[in-house]
Amino acid sequence: MSVTVPAGFEAAGVECGLKQSGGLDLALVVNRGPQQSAAAVFTSNRAKANPILWSQQVVADGTAAAIVLNSGGANCFTGPQGFQTTHATAEAVAEALQVSAGDVLVCSTGLIGEQLDRDKVLAGVTAAAGALADGGGADAARAIMTTDSVPKTTVVEGDGWSIGGMAKGAGMLAPGLATMLVVLTTDADVETQDLDRALRRAARVTFDRLDSDGCMSTNDQVTVLASGASGIRPAFDEFTEALTRACDDLAAQLQADAEGASHDIVIEVRAAHTEHDAVEVGRSVARNNLFKAAVFGNDPNWGRVLAAIGTTHAVFDPYRVDVWMNGVRVCSEGQPDQPRDLVDLTPRRMDVLIDLKSGTASASIRTNDLTHDYVHENSAYSS
Amino acid sequence: MSVTVPAGFEAAGVECGLKQSGGLDLALVVNRGPQQSAAAVFTSNRAKANPILWSQQVVADGTAAAIVLNSGGANCFTGPQGFQTTHATAEAVAEALQVSAGDVLVCSTGLIGEQLDRDKVLAGVTAAAGALADGGGADAARAIMTTDSVPKTTVVEGDGWSIGGMAKGAGMLAPGLATMLVVLTTDADVETQDLDRALRRAARVTFDRLDSDGCMSTNDQVTVLASGASGIRPAFDEFTEALTRACDDLAAQLQADAEGASHDIVIEVRAAHTEHDAVEVGRSVARNNLFKAAVFGNDPNWGRVLAAIGTTHAVFDPYRVDVWMNGVRVCSEGQPDQPRDLVDLTPRRMDVLIDLKSGTASASIRTNDLTHDYVHENSAYSS
Repeated sequence: MSVTVPAGFEAAGVECGLKQSGGLDLALVVNRGPQQSAAAVFTSNRAKANPILWSQQVVADGTAAAIVLNSGGANCFTGPQGFQTTHATAEAVAEALQVSAGDVLVCSTGLIGEQLDRDKVLAGVTAAAGALADGGGADAARAIMTTDSVPKTTVVEGDGWSIGGMAKGAGMLAPGLATMLVVLTTDADVETQDLDRALRRAARVTFDRLDSDGCMSTNDQVTVLASGASGIRPAFDEFTEALTRACDDLAAQLQADAEGASHDIVIEVRAAHTEHDAVEVGRSVARNNLFKAAVFGNDPNWGRVLAAIGTTHAVFDPYRVDVWMNGVRVCSEGQPDQPRDLVDLTPRRMDVLIDLKSGTASASIRTNDLTHDYVHENSAYSS
Repeated sequence: MSVTVPAGFEAAGVECGLKQSGGLDLALVVNRGPQQSAAAVFTSNRAKANPILWSQQVVADGTAAAIVLNSGGANCFTGPQGFQTTHATAEAVAEALQVSAGDVLVCSTGLIGEQLDRDKVLAGVTAAAGALADGGGADAARAIMTTDSVPKTTVVEGDGWSIGGMAKGAGMLAPGLATMLVVLTTDADVETQDLDRALRRAARVTFDRLDSDGCMSTNDQVTVLASGASGIRPAFDEFTEALTRACDDLAAQLQADAEGASHDIVIEVRAAHTEHDAVEVGRSVARNNLFKAAVFGNDPNWGRVLAAIGTTHAVFDPYRVDVWMNGVRVCSEGQPDQPRDLVDLTPRRMDVLIDLKSGTASASIRTNDLTHDYVHENSAYSS
């Protein structure tokens, strides 16, 4: 059950009336210790929501006792009044749990530019604190959903310890994260500094390479909390590997549930001069609306792939590049190769392989196609 | 009648069978002099089509006798065979007109990654050379259309001289130009160096600031040809101003006919630290799919404007910015101001004004919304 699988954690998800559509909209995850290590990475958007500004301060000392998350409102561009709402939320959690407000992380997601109803949030905190349970992870995962169609959770088992996680996403998934809230928990004994390093390494190759629509949110936060309750201290690499698997699983679930998408596209860039080049090239294709619309129409339009690569600064010669789509080499040396009719784009999963012939680095970027439903859902956003 | 309004020019548009849909698909514009000055700006995409590679060489000496343009195929990523087709096209024009092939510019537009039918192109050149006429500008403007719904032409009158122009676009309109072919003609007496400077100045504030969908084409070319036939040499600033007006008029027509768009959006960024900052901020909004989808739904979602600005490197404080939509200040100092219900987004034209409060520079970017029709047209591209 997601974040409550590891020992030492309780969680709850309650309804406090923030979502117009009704349903669970406030989640609380509490770390009962004995350790209360915490690390987080935040949106790189310079316009940061109030809960981001708050949480950055809270996590600075590497400890946190709890994290509270609401859907139904992003509390972004809401000025001093909005910041006070975030602050009051942390204070309410602190009082209910008898901890310091400076150890309470806060996340919000939903429409930006509107005030959160503070009374509803505070009532929700009280209700959630009263509902905390060892098996509360499932409700918590549902309470953070906005336009998500399913809750996203993961569990990775270590040798006597485990990692649990939950995520919400769906649209606005982009580099440096995107309206993506993720909470990971572990009962492994991991020191703060290692927790931070492991999270940054894991996020860099998972969430940071999920680029659904190129839009970067104001509210993204990926948090990991460690209780040490298993009494086991795994090797750093072993823990990092497990955390990366957990992040990768959640990233794939976010991609699969991206707003209105009909294809999950994995763009693998190979033989790049540097890993940075590989990422830049993959992202340029992932953000090309013409390529994405073509995929929606099951059209293997590889010319749009090359046109996108041409906008980058990567080391490459456009007239040496090979491109495969679902295993068919449609372009070699910048010229037509196999007939495009051989490419079957009817499955939801699509693999694009780009061979830059410029070095030995590689990277994979996950994205989605551009569909009628994407336009529809984002022209009528109201969660 | 577009490019044939200025004295000294003849043009033709013929059908040679390149377009599957039928219709005019090859245009020829000839400069009868006495002067044959030419300047051009090209796509900054590093993956350049064969006609771009050819034309860059032709224009290097600042003279050109003719320009031939085809729709129905971009001749890009078609390897040596494709380059030979471009070369043969220029040779055919040269032979028909008794000029040097090194003075014949070539442009192509249409699907990339497929060979042009060389025989059809060469037959088209012969037909076009035979159909050249003083009033041929109208046919030429129609022959370069792909998914354009209307031909785009312009005329700007100077004092005893004039500028004529034609353009094709519709989708893939982006920075550093985009599947945009433009031919401008003038009978003013302008030296090559001044023609080049004037064109760069004009393009920088018009075509370079038209960013319909953020995608950059492999085939963009904006060319200006001067015949000197009026015998009048206007002052440089006067000529540049007129050329800028001609480019701005064509850019507005390209925006108004962008594939599937239902709104023409002008994003004005004011009080920026530098003009570069103003352009970067305007472009970040113009390329934000979530903002563009919201406009399609007539939703004045200003939070997405601020979230987009937050991804830039411009000097600004997100909590000082003001945003107006169609004259209503929906955000001041990064907080909600007037109710969003006051904004009427039903007209096709939408004005966004962003006050960064960081300096005195400004810039305007033209873009379009993201619509069902955009997705549809680009998922079934076949012109």
